[in-house]
Amino acid sequence: MTNRVQIIPKFFRISRDIVAEIQSGRLTTGSQAPSENEIIEKYKVSNTTARKALQEIEREGWVTRIKGKGTYVLNNKVERSVTRILGFTANMREANRVPASKLLSLNVLQDDYPLTINRRQYILKGPLCRIHRLRFADQTPMMIEKRYISLHFCPDIQKLDLEGSLYEIYEKKYGLRLTQVDQMVSAVMMGVDEMVHFGLKQAVPAFRVEGITFCGRELILEMEDSLYRGDQYRFTVKATR
Amino acid sequence: MTNRVQIIPKFFRISRDIVAEIQSGRLTTGSQAPSENEIIEKYKVSNTTARKALQEIEREGWVTRIKGKGTYVLNNKVERSVTRILGFTANMREANRVPASKLLSLNVLQDDYPLTINRRQYILKGPLCRIHRLRFADQTPMMIEKRYISLHFCPDIQKLDLEGSLYEIYEKKYGLRLTQVDQMVSAVMMGVDEMVHFGLKQAVPAFRVEGITFCGRELILEMEDSLYRGDQYRFTVKATR
Repeated sequence: MTNRVQIIPKFFRISRDIVAEIQSGRLTTGSQAPSENEIIEKYKVSNTTARKALQEIEREGWVTRIKGKGTYVLNNKVERSVTRILGFTANMREANRVPASKLLSLNVLQDDYPLTINRRQYILKGPLCRIHRLRFADQTPMMIEKRYISLHFCPDIQKLDLEGSLYEIYEKKYGLRLTQVDQMVSAVMMGVDEMVHFGLKQAVPAFRVEGITFCGRELILEMEDSLYRGDQYRFTVKATR
Repeated sequence: MTNRVQIIPKFFRISRDIVAEIQSGRLTTGSQAPSENEIIEKYKVSNTTARKALQEIEREGWVTRIKGKGTYVLNNKVERSVTRILGFTANMREANRVPASKLLSLNVLQDDYPLTINRRQYILKGPLCRIHRLRFADQTPMMIEKRYISLHFCPDIQKLDLEGSLYEIYEKKYGLRLTQVDQMVSAVMMGVDEMVHFGLKQAVPAFRVEGITFCGRELILEMEDSLYRGDQYRFTVKATR
């Protein structure tokens, strides 16, 4: 896909159509994906092409094929690699979802903000800008976040449009390079406030992510306290020596 | 602490005593840690030493000091770095907890075992050994795991004592080098079976970890499906570029 001049093979185009159906929620978890015969009829392709399309989406983990039964749609959670510095916006774009944000509140605070992370206490020096946002993918609320941003590094950030990617603002508007994010992840039940924000009638398990973003050695740019819906997210990570 | 001949400073010994109280649960979350005066009296030390002991446990994240109020014990969860290959046994030793295991069941299976992880399907070739274990720290049940171990790489492993560290068995008995663990982490509620195993009256949120352990490029040694108690664990991870 890096060479944009190349013609995308037919089976791959078909596989994208099916993935789009899954991502939009029109094909739900546990439902049957189109069969080989349905693909042959709809797209006027050979059975080889139809089979390759189904193999492709199976290889990518969207569906599972059960011999003699059919092809079933798997749980479609957004995957988030936790070892890469990756904003919500970029993560959604990678997952082919349309990101959006709703600013719930914004305050400028004079006090320092402390956070103990990985058994070490850090202090973000005031003044700082606290923002509370709800983040969406294709109109589904996915996570809710509080961010505490240093006004030393980002003067007047509270006057900008804060409904998009903060990481882009840090990098493009303030010329900051994010060097490391130290994160602590807990498994929690969401509270009543979050249920309301997420539009859920029942609480679901969630990931709570507390983090510190550095823009240089020991230079704290921001701190975060976010809640990722457990029914919408899966975190991925590779461990090595 | 690497040079074992060196004399451990007094403040550090005192800090270990307090940490032991927290780890054992005798000092609970939110309760007051000993004050400087109590330390001075109990250990017959200077106020400098007492202060350094409290600073040490604060620095390590066990307690937080609130000006004019006192020193409060923080939530004492085991931290698990998810980017390092780290068995339960080694993780517990690092946390100064005593690990133990209870083998719940053991089977030898002839069939292959499939697992889709990070959108890619892997197959562990049979025959394999499936073990189901409950893991303890200081007698508290912490996590429950199912592991599927290749009998090609570990012939007759089912005949060994499997109540200790599997990673040690892989490395010392079979001479295998674990090169990578690909993991997928979900936030879930534990089921009734797990509540019973954990001795809990109410379900709590948990981390479900599905993983594949490689012992060389594309060589699958084992697969795991584990449940870590959310009230006992916190996962830590550093993200970089």
